[in-house]
Amino acid sequence: MELKENERIDDLQLKGLKIIQNKNGFCFGIDAVLLSDFAKQIKENSVVVDLCSGNGIIPILLCGKTAASKIYGVEIQEEVSELAKRSVCLNHLEDRIEIVNRDLKEIKDVIPSGSVDAVTVNPPYMKKGSGIINERDTKTIARHEISCTLEDIIKEAARVLKFGGSLYMVHKTERLVDVLSCMRKEKVEPKRLRFIHPSFGEAPNLFLVEGVRSGNSFLKIEPPLYVYEDKENYTKEIKEIYHL
Amino acid sequence: MELKENERIDDLQLKGLKIIQNKNGFCFGIDAVLLSDFAKQIKENSVVVDLCSGNGIIPILLCGKTAASKIYGVEIQEEVSELAKRSVCLNHLEDRIEIVNRDLKEIKDVIPSGSVDAVTVNPPYMKKGSGIINERDTKTIARHEISCTLEDIIKEAARVLKFGGSLYMVHKTERLVDVLSCMRKEKVEPKRLRFIHPSFGEAPNLFLVEGVRSGNSFLKIEPPLYVYEDKENYTKEIKEIYHL
Repeated sequence: MELKENERIDDLQLKGLKIIQNKNGFCFGIDAVLLSDFAKQIKENSVVVDLCSGNGIIPILLCGKTAASKIYGVEIQEEVSELAKRSVCLNHLEDRIEIVNRDLKEIKDVIPSGSVDAVTVNPPYMKKGSGIINERDTKTIARHEISCTLEDIIKEAARVLKFGGSLYMVHKTERLVDVLSCMRKEKVEPKRLRFIHPSFGEAPNLFLVEGVRSGNSFLKIEPPLYVYEDKENYTKEIKEIYHL
Repeated sequence: MELKENERIDDLQLKGLKIIQNKNGFCFGIDAVLLSDFAKQIKENSVVVDLCSGNGIIPILLCGKTAASKIYGVEIQEEVSELAKRSVCLNHLEDRIEIVNRDLKEIKDVIPSGSVDAVTVNPPYMKKGSGIINERDTKTIARHEISCTLEDIIKEAARVLKFGGSLYMVHKTERLVDVLSCMRKEKVEPKRLRFIHPSFGEAPNLFLVEGVRSGNSFLKIEPPLYVYEDKENYTKEIKEIYHL
């Protein structure tokens, strides 16, 4: 596998899986890893759509953690989706992962309504207009709601999901009300919520949520996920998730 | 102070405050104590309304924790509100607390729209129809949405609050989506959220939320509140809140 300038191959510590990343681009973080682990209950032979797929980290991790038969990775940025396609080849996952270089608002012909078992998404966290923005920068597009809003994402998830199918999302805690309200509005009822705390006494900074298409209203909050045991060491649970 | 059958006087461990409780009725729990503490930032000379006020525990605690000048305690049950009135007298708080024995949906003549600085509420937690119910039992009315729903409560809070005024609520985590969605819908934007965990590794079972009338959307989740240090002892924070 030939690499372009500024690219590197990272080992995912999971069944020999690897990923190509651009050192100057948006590299995956702990949120993608935790989301994949939160979604590992996805059933055998499921059809999955990963929205805002970026360099394909979530479809690749899901191939290691689940027996999903087909995972679409929808990514609007051509340059980033091309990187994802090469990672799929590098892992010989062409039969399970299909990278779709499209705007997620325009994939009706590729992914029919009510056709998928699960949707995953690690969306841009920042509202448009918050923070300094270069709207053409690939990292900015990954982090800010420039190409799509939270509402666009949840609407599209609601459209593609089968009745009873699940949406798995990770987001920043400051957007919790936006996420939960929008999911309910679009009839993807939040059923399972888990907060991620940097350490024991600290406030959570991220959360994982599972919503069920047309589910009834009853939320279960899971025990907290603590990242650091102390200043230097991960907690046992994080080490297990990272296979350390 | 003469007590009726099955009544007792409890010392609130706060500035000599006391409360009359009926041993066979609904007695206040940790949720009321934590809510009063969460709302202690209520400013001097504020006008406050406590909805679903029960035996008046929250107005009485707020008199100890804040310098609010007037606190209305709205309680639909005659028997329970009569108990609250006697507790107000017992504490000589007649000039600060007024118990209003009314349905909260019918208090427009007592509390004008946009007139209060803060609303507190420890509402019935259970949806109507969940669990075995004796609809005439005072404890059942305190615990189930029989006389009013969550939506009635938030709508009434939105009506009475001044622009920028705060609603403080405690509720069960399984109703988190209901509470946050309804607050946003009624334009009482959730701004501050704190989860209450029985102990360090356990999932939260209750949460405290502050919503601001016509506030913009940005949620701050505070550090977790842990109740027990180990099987027998409260955490330092809980001991401080209880003045132990």
